Order: sequence, then structure tokens, then C-alpha cells
Amino acid sequence: MTAYEEGGGLLAPGWAGSRVEAAVSDLAYVQGLLDAEAALTRAQAALGEAPVEAAESVSAGARAERYDVRSLALRARAAGNPVLALVSDLKAELPEPHREFVHRGATSQDIVDTATMLVAARALDLVLDDLARTERSLAALAAAHRDTVMAGRTLTQHAVPTTFGLKAAGWRSLVLDARDRVRAVRDALPAQLGGAAGTLAALGSPELVAEFARETGLAAPALPWHTLRTPVADLAGALAFTAGALGKLAADVLTLSRTEIAEVSEGAGGGSSAMPHKANPVRATLIAAGARQGSGLASALYGSLVAEDERPPGAWHAEWAPLRDLLRIVGGAAENAGDLIADLRVDTEAMRRNLDLTGGLIVSERLTAALGARVGRARAKELLTSLAARVRRGEGTLAQLLSEPPEFKDLDLDDLTDPAGYTGAAGVLTDRALERR
Amino acid sequence: MTAYEEGGGLLAPGWAGSRVEAAVSDLAYVQGLLDAEAALTRAQAALGEAPVEAAESVSAGARAERYDVRSLALRARAAGNPVLALVSDLKAELPEPHREFVHRGATSQDIVDTATMLVAARALDLVLDDLARTERSLAALAAAHRDTVMAGRTLTQHAVPTTFGLKAAGWRSLVLDARDRVRAVRDALPAQLGGAAGTLAALGSPELVAEFARETGLAAPALPWHTLRTPVADLAGALAFTAGALGKLAADVLTLSRTEIAEVSEGAGGGSSAMPHKANPVRATLIAAGARQGSGLASALYGSLVAEDERPPGAWHAEWAPLRDLLRIVGGAAENAGDLIADLRVDTEAMRRNLDLTGGLIVSERLTAALGARVGRARAKELLTSLAARVRRGEGTLAQLLSEPPEFKDLDLDDLTDPAGYTGAAGVLTDRALERR
Amino acid sequence: MTAYEEGGGLLAPGWAGSRVEAAVSDLAYVQGLLDAEAALTRAQAALGEAPVEAAESVSAGARAERYDVRSLALRARAAGNPVLALVSDLKAELPEPHREFVHRGATSQDIVDTATMLVAARALDLVLDDLARTERSLAALAAAHRDTVMAGRTLTQHAVPTTFGLKAAGWRSLVLDARDRVRAVRDALPAQLGGAAGTLAALGSPELVAEFARETGLAAPALPWHTLRTPVADLAGALAFTAGALGKLAADVLTLSRTEIAEVSEGAGGGSSAMPHKANPVRATLIAAGARQGSGLASALYGSLVAEDERPPGAWHAEWAPLRDLLRIVGGAAENAGDLIADLRVDTEAMRRNLDLTGGLIVSERLTAALGARVGRARAKELLTSLAARVRRGEGTLAQLLSEPPEFKDLDLDDLTDPAGYTGAAGVLTDRALERR
Amino acid sequence: MTAYEEGGGLLAPGWAGSRVEAAVSDLAYVQGLLDAEAALTRAQAALGEAPVEAAESVSAGARAERYDVRSLALRARAAGNPVLALVSDLKAELPEPHREFVHRGATSQDIVDTATMLVAARALDLVLDDLARTERSLAALAAAHRDTVMAGRTLTQHAVPTTFGLKAAGWRSLVLDARDRVRAVRDALPAQLGGAAGTLAALGSPELVAEFARETGLAAPALPWHTLRTPVADLAGALAFTAGALGKLAADVLTLSRTEIAEVSEGAGGGSSAMPHKANPVRATLIAAGARQGSGLASALYGSLVAEDERPPGAWHAEWAPLRDLLRIVGGAAENAGDLIADLRVDTEAMRRNLDLTGGLIVSERLTAALGARVGRARAKELLTSLAARVRRGEGTLAQLLSEPPEFKDLDLDDLTDPAGYTGAAGVLTDRALERR
Repeated sequence: MTAYEEGGGLLAPGWAGSRVEAAVSDLAYVQGLLDAEAALTRAQAALGEAPVEAAESVSAGARAERYDVRSLALRARAAGNPVLALVSDLKAELPEPHREFVHRGATSQDIVDTATMLVAARALDLVLDDLARTERSLAALAAAHRDTVMAGRTLTQHAVPTTFGLKAAGWRSLVLDARDRVRAVRDALPAQLGGAAGTLAALGSPELVAEFARETGLAAPALPWHTLRTPVADLAGALAFTAGALGKLAADVLTLSRTEIAEVSEGAGGGSSAMPHKANPVRATLIAAGARQGSGLASALYGSLVAEDERPPGAWHAEWAPLRDLLRIVGGAAENAGDLIADLRVDTEAMRRNLDLTGGLIVSERLTAALGARVGRARAKELLTSLAARVRRGEGTLAQLLSEPPEFKDLDLDDLTDPAGYTGAAGVLTDRALERR
Repeated sequence: MTAYEEGGGLLAPGWAGSRVEAAVSDLAYVQGLLDAEAALTRAQAALGEAPVEAAESVSAGARAERYDVRSLALRARAAGNPVLALVSDLKAELPEPHREFVHRGATSQDIVDTATMLVAARALDLVLDDLARTERSLAALAAAHRDTVMAGRTLTQHAVPTTFGLKAAGWRSLVLDARDRVRAVRDALPAQLGGAAGTLAALGSPELVAEFARETGLAAPALPWHTLRTPVADLAGALAFTAGALGKLAADVLTLSRTEIAEVSEGAGGGSSAMPHKANPVRATLIAAGARQGSGLASALYGSLVAEDERPPGAWHAEWAPLRDLLRIVGGAAENAGDLIADLRVDTEAMRRNLDLTGGLIVSERLTAALGARVGRARAKELLTSLAARVRRGEGTLAQLLSEPPEFKDLDLDDLTDPAGYTGAAGVLTDRALERR
Repeated sequence: MTAYEEGGGLLAPGWAGSRVEAAVSDLAYVQGLLDAEAALTRAQAALGEAPVEAAESVSAGARAERYDVRSLALRARAAGNPVLALVSDLKAELPEPHREFVHRGATSQDIVDTATMLVAARALDLVLDDLARTERSLAALAAAHRDTVMAGRTLTQHAVPTTFGLKAAGWRSLVLDARDRVRAVRDALPAQLGGAAGTLAALGSPELVAEFARETGLAAPALPWHTLRTPVADLAGALAFTAGALGKLAADVLTLSRTEIAEVSEGAGGGSSAMPHKANPVRATLIAAGARQGSGLASALYGSLVAEDERPPGAWHAEWAPLRDLLRIVGGAAENAGDLIADLRVDTEAMRRNLDLTGGLIVSERLTAALGARVGRARAKELLTSLAARVRRGEGTLAQLLSEPPEFKDLDLDDLTDPAGYTGAAGVLTDRALERR
Repeated sequence: MTAYEEGGGLLAPGWAGSRVEAAVSDLAYVQGLLDAEAALTRAQAALGEAPVEAAESVSAGARAERYDVRSLALRARAAGNPVLALVSDLKAELPEPHREFVHRGATSQDIVDTATMLVAARALDLVLDDLARTERSLAALAAAHRDTVMAGRTLTQHAVPTTFGLKAAGWRSLVLDARDRVRAVRDALPAQLGGAAGTLAALGSPELVAEFARETGLAAPALPWHTLRTPVADLAGALAFTAGALGKLAADVLTLSRTEIAEVSEGAGGGSSAMPHKANPVRATLIAAGARQGSGLASALYGSLVAEDERPPGAWHAEWAPLRDLLRIVGGAAENAGDLIADLRVDTEAMRRNLDLTGGLIVSERLTAALGARVGRARAKELLTSLAARVRRGEGTLAQLLSEPPEFKDLDLDDLTDPAGYTGAAGVLTDRALERR
């Protein structure tokens, strides 16, 4: 079985070859299904409902590499899911007397849902790793650039100065928000065990559920959740959030990477097939692409909350692919974000240079206040608006034009129009944000 | 107050006239904007940055009824949001010396975001009320029907028996999940205060943020969140979850209301313009419609996490309408769900009658086990599969056909094929679920 | 080359093993990329810009089986797409002098977009096949059941009678609408050729575009469409429509398959892992699941219309996976729909039996008119509403209760309350609908 | 007419006050409902099924201003739609003998769907107007800037030169694509008439449908489409397309408006509440916000294709708000786009200045070809890659560095590195694109 079989990925450079790709491959799902079956027999053995030898035998047979994943996929069409086919193949691996202790009392959805939670747990652990790595790099970046002044931009226009430290601290706070949401969901991922209609009718004692959950390492559910899809919706929310949070970071990197802005660049820019000079922000691009896909996938999962009866004809089946895709997208994005931030190059000179592009207008808010104290706020605003027009026409910087009228002669205009002197509480905010762990 | 302020609603019978409609009307948003402005001046007064009289004056002027909402809406086009226009109108209401203490140091987004959180908080309180009411009705329903046997249905087919109590307990657990998610988000809704680029540059001390939050009754944010949209994404998740959770309940009611099933009915069914006999499940229909709209709206909000720079050109503006629509939809659905469950009529006889529709096949799982213990599981399955075909052809009930071969003569087939005897742990699960508060 | 390259599919029983799966596999995309490169060199040769031998050589090398798909996927991460890597591998397959005539003047997006259109064309041809097959079966079904009376259901309740013929004709009209939309889009799929920024600067004459299109068999675009994504949005619309149209058909089959309704059944129902008697409507379930996924995927594609600059950092990359997924989902759904309808079993007796469930109320609309002609419409409505309540309480059928008052004695109540006599223009509408080709 | 009827709009500066706002207001829908009722009675009169006087009387009563929209909205809750209530109010306006000829044989959905199509038709006519206006401005812009050279940008980086004419021609081609899709959908909008279950049972002759359609001015449907929602899905597609197409234009304007790029600006930029110097690209921002909302709304409409039975409990009701919102968003965006393009200021000097930012690297593709002809393509690429690094380090322009080695001395490097000389077929492509009408 080669790596390829574990994932494909030609159309998905955002996650091809990532750790999460392998963690959510078809093979990984088969392993999850087998783990669920083995946990069930072990739990039944623990309660005396199956021979210990059968449990050992099923556990030994629960190795995905032994099974033909493609055949399972094709046989899944008849029943609508691969469990019937897998149970049959698994039994064939076992000594005859142990066969009847496979899948006893369970329904296909018990196995698929449990496998899905196992796969999700493994994938989320990787995501958490990468978020932690990203967070650490961002903390270092924010601390290093606590006082690096740059243009604050709103609605595409220079507004007032800010610092790169504050920006990085903001990215980090989103990454921490993502971490908190992913971790909370991950820790609550439940096993599923309910039998045909969630009554445990063929499963004997309700204590089996807790035992089963223990064997899987997942949480024990309060009720079978065949059509109470809170765990899946919670995954959708946490993953869509993470995709979007990393998407914000990537969007900023893309903007700041523009040829005209050039304040940051990816350490390892991607080449072009035609232009030898190009260094494209490929990682940010791939993270951005993931964010664009994430919200639609989450939408499908929220839609599947509307799951009628004791097992719905479609809403359940519609969850599988979008959930896996979300895990892949977020896993790939987290890995890329970790690399992107670790390698990010920051050009503080470009930041400084861009700050001067508006000839001082970037501090017009400050001047409104300072001049207003002297001539009244309304008059100051009026004056600055007309000077702004002159600055835009290239008649001089704001400092130069302000030195013309005698009334402001005594003001230290160079100081007042220095963007570095108008970063407000950016430093303090950065310090405080970095205290969060 | 004209009808206008109450919200329109001709195309939205799901929330027209609901309490949440008024809570999120244009007028309510204007009130939120004014509350934010007044809180800012009060906070500045508390820190000695504005005269107490100015704060009192602004607070007194902060009454939405005084303003022309439509004019604000029209003037919002120029700046892209209504704050500039409202600040101008608000100032005009104040004595001249107090005017300069309105909106000092703030940016439009500080005011809009804070107002949005205030409106959301008020709307979510109504949602929590209705979820609590729904939950109580469901608890009573689940307890009353703890042992009411009905068909469990999977992929549209009778599977094995379950109880209506377990079903109602499942609905309740979703409502509680929704309550928990809504409450957590509601309690964390933050005020917004950052100034033009989130550095607090024109706002003076960072302590102002905490004071401002206190004045609004919202949480104090760790950082200005102009482009760190966690609060909005969290609202999206909690609201999409609630819409979907109530949608599950409605989907079940709709199915069970079908003329052929008729196990439940809305107490107050809606009439038809053509058919005097019809009693339509209108509340469930409207809840279902809301659930279908919710996930797409949430998707737009998750998409807006990708908010570049210090204020994005579009991502922020794209949040407003979907968030309000989600609040309306969920508020209306919660109110309808409360009424629906309070009035729900349960026809236990129909449940019993439907159980017999398959001539005993609904307990074939149980028989597989019981007969299997005697003739081996494989042989039992085979036998039951062939008998199932005969039952479907109308050759008799399963109990009748099973009594033919001599080998099962001594089994109590009537008992074994009684659906009421095969509800597994439904009762215990219901009891346990009802312990959750 | 193993089966895997044909698509994975463990989580996708809706399309695993379908013809469309192979048509959109990674291998198929690599073939599309190679076809695009070969067409380019051939077009250049036709215009005298490359030696004919080079074109032949590239065409001969353009066989996907020769390339390591997984390696391409992994190397795609650096540039953000697999073209650079593939061009390098393709060159290595060629005699040295021909290598420089590979990918000359093109940009990666020229090749990826053209390949995507080639893959889409091949997939849509399969979809059109299956839609045609489904349409023929539906025409036969509608004709055969032109006069099969069944309950018309609105808001889950019996309304007035309809015919199964009209229902099947309606399904067919949606299938024909889907066919028309898919075919129109398929016929307009354009080749892509623009060079680095869409100016054809390195490609020489603009005539090359038409020549290139001819070589690919695709339409010639009016402009390079690197960021004018009409073709992709049109695909999104046609595919989302088809997924939804088939979803309507599946939703009806699922409803009519319910144990309590049982008017239709899938010829080959899917088994259950626990219950020997179950025959699940698996095909309809899988089609329904596809419909639930389709609209979110289309939403991502419409979102990618917002593609800034001459190639966007993310919007383009975000198209690839959703478009392929839509092709798979629709291809699988069309194949399943073809099989579903071909094998559908219709139980006309059940239809007749269900019609009587309301004790004649299903024709209350007709009676309102008939009685109204005698006693006035308002009085008739009132009377029928009160009789409806009595029918529901089990006091008799509508015909029985109506025969009590002397005033309607002379009416042929059996005839008036016969559902088969109240199907309106269902037959005529069915005939007319079947005239559409 | 109070403000209410004009639509609210505080949170929607993108369409508040636009013409489309009024065209899709609650009042406009009530007028549509009344128009449908009046057309029905007139059609019945034309076929001799109602007195001509009744038709005249209903037509005279069909004036929305006479009705209490808010009361209708509130009474719509009981039946799930406003038709029952409106029919009752309409009858009250009529002389007693004419009352029975209102809504005869129709079902609520006939009236709501027809009204929706009437409203959509009126709104789309406005959209078409604004698209035509936008298209004309773009044609002028493209022609005027046919040869205005600017940087082509891919993945945020300068790639090769292009022209502003080609960019404007591309925007125009998207606007024309939108126009074609909107117009096709608009011309096919059908009336709806089927009666309770779409069989026309209470409506008499099927000829009534064509007559009804004629009276409404809408197309005659082949079948009642209560659950065959092609017209709504087609609207979704055309509107999502238009929102996205205008979103592309807005995205480019936003990028080119950036302070650092400054190649275009909105003639009437929006002010800021804090910074006197700011001129925000507000129109582009609002169009961009609309595009972000459009795809999720369309997704809900595509989802409603899955409409079970003869009228679905929820899927139909879920269409109303998203469809109106899409009409508003697109109507507002088209109006804003018309204004935006009419007033757009183009700074050709800034374009030229930005072209030089890379020290000639923007034509590296051309140099690869030119130098390659001399020293071989591979060697040329290598050389340029190393020179690109030196240019980026500020060691000189490409022309300067290339003049160092003796082998290229005789090349006219200034000419070869002039971006204006490397715009390929941009002019020809622009000319051709402008031929499309």
C-alpha cells in the first residue's frame, strides 16, 4: 500500500502530503471502523457478554492493511455504507467460533460514527500541534515587532499608524481562539452505541456504552446520538472557525506581500512557470483557498442537524465527505500556517517607507485633536480636509503646509506628524495579548 | 411608532410578530448605536475625560424614538454605515458645549459592533427564554411517554421499536445543547472599542475599554476585534446550531404528522385556502423553513472571518444582514417550538397501530437472537429473511408463520413478537437524559 | 496502476465505482493537463510556430499512465499547482530538441483551466447519458400510470387526489430541465489560453487561441478568462440544479417508500446489518445525500467569481475541489437515478388504499363546490368543516355522514366522494408534458 | 405610503433607497398577490367562468395601498402564508355578489408564486437597466484606455504588463454575461396555476392557465411547478452570478484603490467619522459585501429544489426571504456599479509609476525569450533569476545589470525592458471584446 492510496491530492496542494492527509485517508477510516468493532467486542468481553479470546481475536484482526479498501468502497454501495462488507471481511479473518462476537447488537451507524470520531480525534491532535507551533511563532513575532510602526489600513486606505506587533498579536489571538474551540470539541468527541434504533435493545445493559467508550478512548455519550448530531455540528463550527481564522492571517500576508506594499514576504515563495522573477506567496494562497471552501462545507454539516427519525435517509450520509474535507483543509492550513509564520520575512524599512506615502495624512486624526485644542475642533477638521486635498495634489507634506500659517508656528510639527509617535496603546495591547497562554 | 419599526415580515411568518422581531428591528439597532455612544461618553466621564454633564446629556439624548430611522438608513450610503449620520443627529439634540463629547476618539465600527452585540444580547435572552420553555414541555412529554411504544424508523423503514419518551428526551437534549451554546456565546459578547485602527490612539488610556464595557453591560475584550471576528463567528455557530436542532424536532413532527402516520398533530393546525378539512402542521413547517435558511447565513458569517487589514472593505458590512436574519429566524423558531411542543397532541393508539403494520417484522432483530440461540444465528437470519418475504406478501404475521415449523412450538411467539417487549433501555435512557438540567 | 487511482470513495457510496468517478480521477486530470499541453504545441505547429515533429512528440508523450500522479501532487505544493512539475516530467520524456516546444508562452492556469474543462466535458457527457436514460424510464412510467390515482399531499397532509402519472411527468420535466442546462453549459465549455496575464504576450498571434481551442475540442473563448469565471459559475449552476432536481425525485421516492405509505419501493433495496427484514431505499438515500452537499459546493464556486487581479491568490485554487466534487456527486446521482427509476416498483393498490384513509375528506374541495352550488359556498364550507371533524373522530366516512341530512339525498354521494373522479386535468397535463423531448 | 413600505434598510446601505428596494418591498409583494388574484378572475371571465363585472371589480380592488400590510403579515402566521388573510380583506372590498369569484379554484401557492414572479420581473427590469448603464460606461472606459499600460498582477505580484483597457473590457464581458443570464431568466418567468395539488381540479379547463399567464404578463408554464422549482433555481443562479460578477469588478477597484497602488479612485469616496483625509471606496465596498452574501443565499434556494410531495413543508417557505434578499443585493449592487464606473477616476501616471517598481522585472518573461534566442532558454532563465535577486537587493534595474556582460551589449535593452512594449494582444483583445453587444 503506497502513500498514494492514502490520499490522492492532485487538486489539493493545500493538504497533499500533509500529516492530516494520512490521518483521514480511506485507510485511516477503515482502521477507525475496525477499532470500533474491536472495542465493542472487548467491551462485551469486559462485561462477560463475549469470550475474552474472541475479543483478542477481533482486536488482532483489526488491522486496516489487511483489507481491500477499494473493494469495501464498492460493496458499500449496496447498503449505503461500508460496515456490512467490512464485518463480513473481518469475520473471514477470524476463527469460526469468534465470528459471532463481531458487531453483536450494533448497527452500522454505531461503527461509522465511532470511527469518524476516532479519525477526527487523530486529525484534531495534529491540528492542535500545528496551531501550537503557529502560536509560538506568532508570539515571538509580536514580541520582536512590539514597536515596529506600520500603516493601519481601513477600507483599503491608510488610516492611522499601528504596529506589526499588534497585528501579529491579533493573528495569535485568533489562533488561540481556534485552539480553544478545537480542543473543547476534541475532548468531547463521543463514541456512538445505540443499536438499530438507539434503544440498545440488542446490546444488553446500558453499562456497555460507557465500557465501549472507555475502550475507544472517546467520551461516553449521554444518549445515542444517531440523529442528535451535536458532535458533528460542533466539529463543523470549530473547523470553519479555524479555517477562517487562518484565512484572516493569510489575507493580511497576501495584502502585505503585494509588490507595491512589500512589507512581508514568504520565506519560500513559489515559482512561476513563465516568469523567473516571481516569488508567489503560495502558502498564504493555499490557506486562503481553504478558508473559501470551509464555510460552505460547514454549512452542509449544520444542515445535517435536520436528521429525521432514528436514522435519516440522506442527512447522515451527507456528513461524511464534507467533514473529512474540512479536516483536510484545516489540517493543511494549520501546517501551512505554521511554516508560513516560521519563515515570514518582515521588511520594517518598507513599513516605514509606506507610512510616509500620504505625506503625513496618516496622522490627520492626531492633528485634528492637537489643532482643535487651539482653534476649535470644527475649524481644525475643515483646515485639515483642505490641506489633505493639497497634499494629495503633491503641493507638499502636511508638516510643510501646516508651517505656512503663523498660528501653528510654535507647534513641533515634525513631531506631531511623525507616525511613530501616534501608535496609541499598541504596545500595551500587544503585551497584554501575549500574556494569554 | 409605526409598523415600520416593528420589522416588516410579510414574507416571514416564521418570525413576524415575535418578540425577537422587535428586539432586532432597525429601531432597536438605532437604540443600540445610541447606547454605545452614551456608554462611551459616560466611560470617559468616569475617567475624567469628559464632563459628567455631557455624559448625562448624551444619555438623555440616546432615545431611538427621537431619530428618523429612514433618514439614517439613506444617509448611511455615503459612508457605508449609519454612524456618521447618527452622530450628527445626536449632536443636534444636545446643548452646544456637550456636542464635542460625542463619539470622541471612536471609529464607526466601535459603535456598530457594540450596538450589534447589545442587540444580539437582547435577542439571545429571548431565545433562551423560549428554549427554556420548550425544554420544560419536552421534559414533561418525555416523562409522560416514558413507556409509550412506537416504531423506530431508519432510512424511512420500520426498524425496531422505540418509545416516544426517548424521542422527546432526544429532542430535549438537543434543545439543552442549543441552550448551552447560546448561553455561552451570550455571556461572552464583548463591547468594541479601538479607534480608527484598533490602537486606542485617540481614546487615551486603555482602561477606558473596561470602563466602556462596564457601561454597556457587555464583556471587556482582550483586544479590539475589528478584524478578529470571533464573537460574530461564535454567534453564527450557536445560532446555526439552534436553528438545526429545532429543525430536527420539526422534521420529526412533520413526519409523524403525515396523514398515513398520524402519531402526533399540532394542536392548532393551520387552515388551507381551498380545503376545509386540512389541518396543516404550520409551526413545524415554519421551523423547518428557518432551519433551511440558517446554515447558508452562518456560512456567510464564517466567511467574514477573512477580514483583511484593520477594517475590511466588505467582509464586515456583509455580516450585518445575515446576523440579524439568523437572530430573527432562531428567535421565531424558538418561539414556535415552544408553542408547538406545549400544544402537541400525541396519539398513542396510532403509534400502537403502526407498530403492527409489518406483521411483526419490526422485532425481527430480536427473533434473530432468540431463534439463533436455538438453531444458530446464520440459520435464523436466513429463515427470518424468507419469512419476511412471506409476511410482505400478506401470508400472515410473523408469529403465525413461525408457529408452523415444530421446532419453535414451545417458544412464546406472541410475547417474542410483541413490540412493547422490545424497547431495550429506552426507559432507562429517558430517565437518565431527564436528569440533565 | 491500481483501482485506487480511479477515486477512493470509501466515504462516497453515492459515486464510488461510477463511470464519472474514473472520468474525474487524479489520473483523468493529469490526462487533461497533458492533452492541453499537446494541443498547445500542435496549435503552434499548425501556425508554423513549432516543428510538426515536436507536436507529434509531445502528443505521443501525453499519456497519463506514464507519470507518477502522487509525485506530481506532492510537487504541486511548491508552486501551488501541478503544472510546473508536469511540464518538467513531460520534457524528460521527449527528445531534447523538442523540449523547448512544451508549454511555450503559456501560464499554468492556461493548462489547468483547459484540463478542467476537458475533464468536465467528459464527465458531463456521462451525466447527459444517465439523464437521458432516466428521462426515458420516467416517460414510460408516466404513460403507464397516466390514470393511476393517488393522494396529492401538501404540507404532509392529504390534499386532493392526483395521479402517479402526473408525478412522474413532473420528475421527468425536472430531469429535462437539468439536461437542457447541463447540455448548454457543456457545449460552451471554453479552452483557456492567455499567458501570464492574459495578454497573449508570449504566445504570438491571437489566432493561436482559436487553433488551440480546435485542437482541444473545446469552444474558443472571446477573452482569456483567468479571472472572468463565467464557465465555472455556469457549471456550478447547472450541477447544483441537477443535484437538486434529482434530489426532488429522491425525496418523493423516500416519502412514498415509508412503511406506512408503501406506494413505491426500490427494486433492489439495501440490507441492514442488524435487521433481516429491512429493504432500505438506498439509492434514493444516496441521491438525497448528494443534493444536500451540492448547494454548499456551488456556493463556493459562485464565491470564486470574486477573483481579483489577473490571477487571484486563492479564489482560483478554491474552485478545483468543489467542482470535482460536484461532478462526482451529480454523476453518481444521475447513475443512481437511472437505476432507481428503471427498477422502481409501484404499488397501485397501496395508492388506492391510502386514498381512502381520510374517509373521503380528500375530495372535500370538490364537495365544497358541489354542495356550495346548492346551499351557498360559505354554508357548504362550514358544513364540511364540521363533518370533517366527525370523520376524524371516526363517526363515518364523508359519504355516510352526508347522506344523513335530507337535502343532499339526491346527490350521487358515492360518485362525488370517489377520489378517482377528481383528478382534474392530471391526464391532459401528463400527455402534454410527455410531448416535450 | 410610510417609510415602512419602502423597506427598512438601516443595515443595508448597499440597497437602502435604491429603486429595487421599493420594487421588492412588502407593499410590492402585496400588489403582486393582488395582481395575481385579479388576473385569475379576469382569466376566468375571459373563459366565461366568471362575470366580467366581477373581474372588473376585483381588478379595481387590487390596489395594495388599501390594505394593511402589517396586519396581513401577522395573520400569515396561522396559515403559513398571507393569502388567506388577503383574500378575506379583498373580498371585504367587493360588492357581495362578486366575492365568490375571488381566488376560485386556486391554492395559496398559485398566488404567492405568481406574485413572486411578478415582483422578480419588475426587479430584474431595474437590474437590466443598471447593467446596461454599467456596460456602456465600461465600454467607454475600455476604449479610452485601450493602450494604457499597467502592471498585470498574479498571486498579488507583478507578473507582466497588461492594459487598463483590457481589464475594463473584461469587467464589461462579465457584466454582459450577467445581463444575458438575467434577461434569459426574466423572459421565462412563469405564472403559477395548479390548484390544491397541481391538477387544476377546481379550476376547470387547462386553457385557463394560458389565459391567466397572459393576464399576468408572465410566461405560461408547461406544468404547475409547485414542487418543480426550476424558475426559482434559475433566478438563484442568475442573481448569484450577477452578484459575483459585480464583485469581481469591485474587488479589482478595491485593490487598485489601495493607498500604495492608487491607480483608480471612486469619484465620490466615502468619509470617515475620525479621519478628515480619508476617501473610502464605499461603493466598491458595498458591492463586495453583497457578493459575499449572494452565494449563501443562492445555496438556500438551490437547496429548496428538494421539495417533496405536491407542496413541501418548509422548502417552499424557505425560498421567500433569500430570493428577495438576492434581488435587493443584486439590484443595489447594479445601481452602485453603474455609479461607480460612471465616476471612476483613473490615474494613468500611477499605473506607469507602479510598472517601474520592479526595476524591469515585470518584463522578465520577454527577456527570457529574447536572451534565450541568443544563449539558450535554460541559460537565459538562470541568468535572469540571478539578476532578479540582484534587482531585488537594489543593485540596479534589470536594464542596467544586463548591460554589464558584453554579450548583450548590442541589444536595445531600454526598449526590451520597456513595459509598454510588452502588452501582447491586449489592444486587439480589447477591440474584439468591444464588438460584443
